[in-house]
Amino acid sequence: MHPRRVLRFIGVLVFFVGLSMALALLVAFLYSEPSAGDLAASMGITCGAGLILFLATKGEEVTHLSHRDGVAIVTLGWFVAGVVGALPFLVSGSIGNFTDAYFESVSGFTTTGASILSDIEKLPKGILMWRSIIQWLGGMGIIVLSIAILPFLGIGGMQLYKAEVPSPVVDKLKPRISDTAKVLWKVYILLTVLQILLLLGGGMSLFDSVCHAFCTMPTGGFSPLNKSIAHYDSPYFDGVIIVFMLLAAINFSLHYRLLKGEAGVFGRDPECRVFLILVGILILLVTLDIYGSVYPSLAQAFRYAAFQISSMITTTGFVTADYDTWPSLSKCLLVLSMFFGGMAGSTGGGIKTVRLIVMAKHAYEEVFRIIHPHAVRAVKLGGKPVPSDVLSSIWGFFFLYLTCYMISTLILAGLGLDPISAFSAVAACIFNVGPGLGLVGPTQNYLAVPLVGKWVLIIGMILGRLEIYTVIVLFMPEYWRK
Amino acid sequence: MHPRRVLRFIGVLVFFVGLSMALALLVAFLYSEPSAGDLAASMGITCGAGLILFLATKGEEVTHLSHRDGVAIVTLGWFVAGVVGALPFLVSGSIGNFTDAYFESVSGFTTTGASILSDIEKLPKGILMWRSIIQWLGGMGIIVLSIAILPFLGIGGMQLYKAEVPSPVVDKLKPRISDTAKVLWKVYILLTVLQILLLLGGGMSLFDSVCHAFCTMPTGGFSPLNKSIAHYDSPYFDGVIIVFMLLAAINFSLHYRLLKGEAGVFGRDPECRVFLILVGILILLVTLDIYGSVYPSLAQAFRYAAFQISSMITTTGFVTADYDTWPSLSKCLLVLSMFFGGMAGSTGGGIKTVRLIVMAKHAYEEVFRIIHPHAVRAVKLGGKPVPSDVLSSIWGFFFLYLTCYMISTLILAGLGLDPISAFSAVAACIFNVGPGLGLVGPTQNYLAVPLVGKWVLIIGMILGRLEIYTVIVLFMPEYWRK
Repeated sequence: MHPRRVLRFIGVLVFFVGLSMALALLVAFLYSEPSAGDLAASMGITCGAGLILFLATKGEEVTHLSHRDGVAIVTLGWFVAGVVGALPFLVSGSIGNFTDAYFESVSGFTTTGASILSDIEKLPKGILMWRSIIQWLGGMGIIVLSIAILPFLGIGGMQLYKAEVPSPVVDKLKPRISDTAKVLWKVYILLTVLQILLLLGGGMSLFDSVCHAFCTMPTGGFSPLNKSIAHYDSPYFDGVIIVFMLLAAINFSLHYRLLKGEAGVFGRDPECRVFLILVGILILLVTLDIYGSVYPSLAQAFRYAAFQISSMITTTGFVTADYDTWPSLSKCLLVLSMFFGGMAGSTGGGIKTVRLIVMAKHAYEEVFRIIHPHAVRAVKLGGKPVPSDVLSSIWGFFFLYLTCYMISTLILAGLGLDPISAFSAVAACIFNVGPGLGLVGPTQNYLAVPLVGKWVLIIGMILGRLEIYTVIVLFMPEYWRK
Repeated sequence: MHPRRVLRFIGVLVFFVGLSMALALLVAFLYSEPSAGDLAASMGITCGAGLILFLATKGEEVTHLSHRDGVAIVTLGWFVAGVVGALPFLVSGSIGNFTDAYFESVSGFTTTGASILSDIEKLPKGILMWRSIIQWLGGMGIIVLSIAILPFLGIGGMQLYKAEVPSPVVDKLKPRISDTAKVLWKVYILLTVLQILLLLGGGMSLFDSVCHAFCTMPTGGFSPLNKSIAHYDSPYFDGVIIVFMLLAAINFSLHYRLLKGEAGVFGRDPECRVFLILVGILILLVTLDIYGSVYPSLAQAFRYAAFQISSMITTTGFVTADYDTWPSLSKCLLVLSMFFGGMAGSTGGGIKTVRLIVMAKHAYEEVFRIIHPHAVRAVKLGGKPVPSDVLSSIWGFFFLYLTCYMISTLILAGLGLDPISAFSAVAACIFNVGPGLGLVGPTQNYLAVPLVGKWVLIIGMILGRLEIYTVIVLFMPEYWRK
């Protein structure tokens, strides 16, 4: 690992995060808020710090990065971005202590959406905009990370689309990381703009439209409103947001191909097909479960089921109903959705559909092998065999995910959270969803979680967002050996 | 698959299960209970049915069994044994309907220990003895299944000790299935007798001693007493039962080697070492959690923690305290213990220590591979590489286990059980433990579970006991193809 090289990258990152405060500053200025000063100060400090780091590491070779450098940049990048993001919350006094501000900021950059704020609406508009911007930036980071960086580090579901497996996805996308990033960002920006326009068209204010769109595309789920999307009680907004949440959880390479004119690309992609079927089944089950028991009309039951399942499986975390009062099955299905998550190469969190497919197919082959012990068959995805090292990596990921999950839940339970709150808080954070059940349910927030618990969840958010391996590898003595 | 061959085996099985009713009959006779007549009738019917099946399939070649025959015999065997075992409950009127009687019987033969009885003590002694006998028989079946049969079908944790991996375990045990079975049964009987003597020595009645020993060695957990082991409130009995629960969850090959004079064999075996360390850590954590909050003295906290963790991780299910009132962390740790389970080649259920070790080592290797992408290293156990097909089988098993777990939990939640009751009921049944939390907690029973739920749990008990693959394979069209 080359510390100076890593720091040079972090410097650039910090500088650009600082620059992006300009938009929040503009909002504060337009609303003539005193927070403008706080944001300007934060921006100055951040850009300054980034610049100093950049200049202090001058002359450092940055075109050649090792695996180890890549891992360090990604992990350190998210932790540092969290610190920078917390600055405006602290400087403006919107959040009174570092842990809470860092929690909120990391929750933003990891596109989780878990909040420690009890009364969101009392925050200045500039700060609320900043809160949305960090989610949007986090989403941009994730796209590049999952499609361009992690596969080259041998991590993540998208490695299935790596060079070894000739895939239509990679073939069409430009090969170099920065080119890929630019292409995908264009898609990301386009979808965001489209959503803003559709929300505006339905009569949502410009500020709210921008904030919600900024938090939908990254499957983030922060809202400037205390009651989240339930505030509007509008089937139109529900519908628009459902569609964009689902789009955000679909592999961005597919969007790119669709925009290039490849019709029917969603239906042809094996992962996308399973993802959409899964969403359909889950919505159907929840609809049937809450119809009658919670909502007297089938249409209502469907509307709220569709929104909440879409919100959970895409790991967005917007809320239109207090699902903590729904029947047992619906609550279980919502938590299960968090485990599933979106597609690889999307901004969604969770285990990811492609991994579920590969694991299920592998399990099927194992049953088959009991009948034909000497048959040699490979697990296939879209007609192509899954390389054994990718399969191996997926199982390792799955096990590490569950292990981190288990340890985090035990710590929260040890801090006094009841089993359901502990279990769902960890799910909501490690899978980057946001709201959970019980103490951290849809009408609650994370303020009441004890200090140590907040730090466990902060680490969980980053672990989950960076696909676990990226962070865990830093704790191996092997990593630090020359 | 050769149906007649399979039926011939089932005939023999049914006949011997029938014969074993003689002991219960003797007890009923000694206590001059009217249940003696019911047991005699059940015995007559069962032995007769077994004999008819045996004679009807006369002339059938039984020395050559295919993989498919093996799978069918094992699965059908457990389902049929359940029916036979239910007969005395139904004939004596101790349990009023087939589902409940079958639930109780399958819970016995799978050595689960989940009960639908609200007032156990009002049952005749003969029937209570029968209830213990089926657990003891189930345990005998499991030992042979896990050490002698499943490895040859390519299923189960013990395949790690198969011929391909030259292991001290297999080398020392006699090679043929029936010889192996006899050796292991001697160990099983010896330990049972030893436990009976120790319980008698502490002043427990002969009847209770036999019943409890019959339900400890198979890690079953049925008790003839409403309050289970808590009835005695005796540190001596707690201690004896803890030791024998742990012994029952240790690979029986190790017991055999120990009896042959190999000292220190528990400490040298990598699985046993991890199992005992795990037990120690879990007891420590629960002790610290309940000390002060539930029990004022550290000794008391340790006593109850040691018993309950041993009971859960060995998947026995005896109870000395209402752990449903313990703090959140302890409840989570108890449920987690159920997932872990005992060692391969023991009568314990759960995922099994050896699988946990192999999965953890594999995950570690995957992290290592991110740092050294081109390093080729195998997962090793006890210094020997784990064959890739065994590794593959373990992952498939793990995924299928979790999938069955998830589906069962969702069905129970859909039937109206709250999430914790549903989640823990499935854990308690699929991992063959017995009591769970909430509705099916230590002071409750399974009577209140809706009919469909009982059948889901019955199937879960058999699925878990037969290591999932054995049952699932029967649902593959491939299995039934010529």
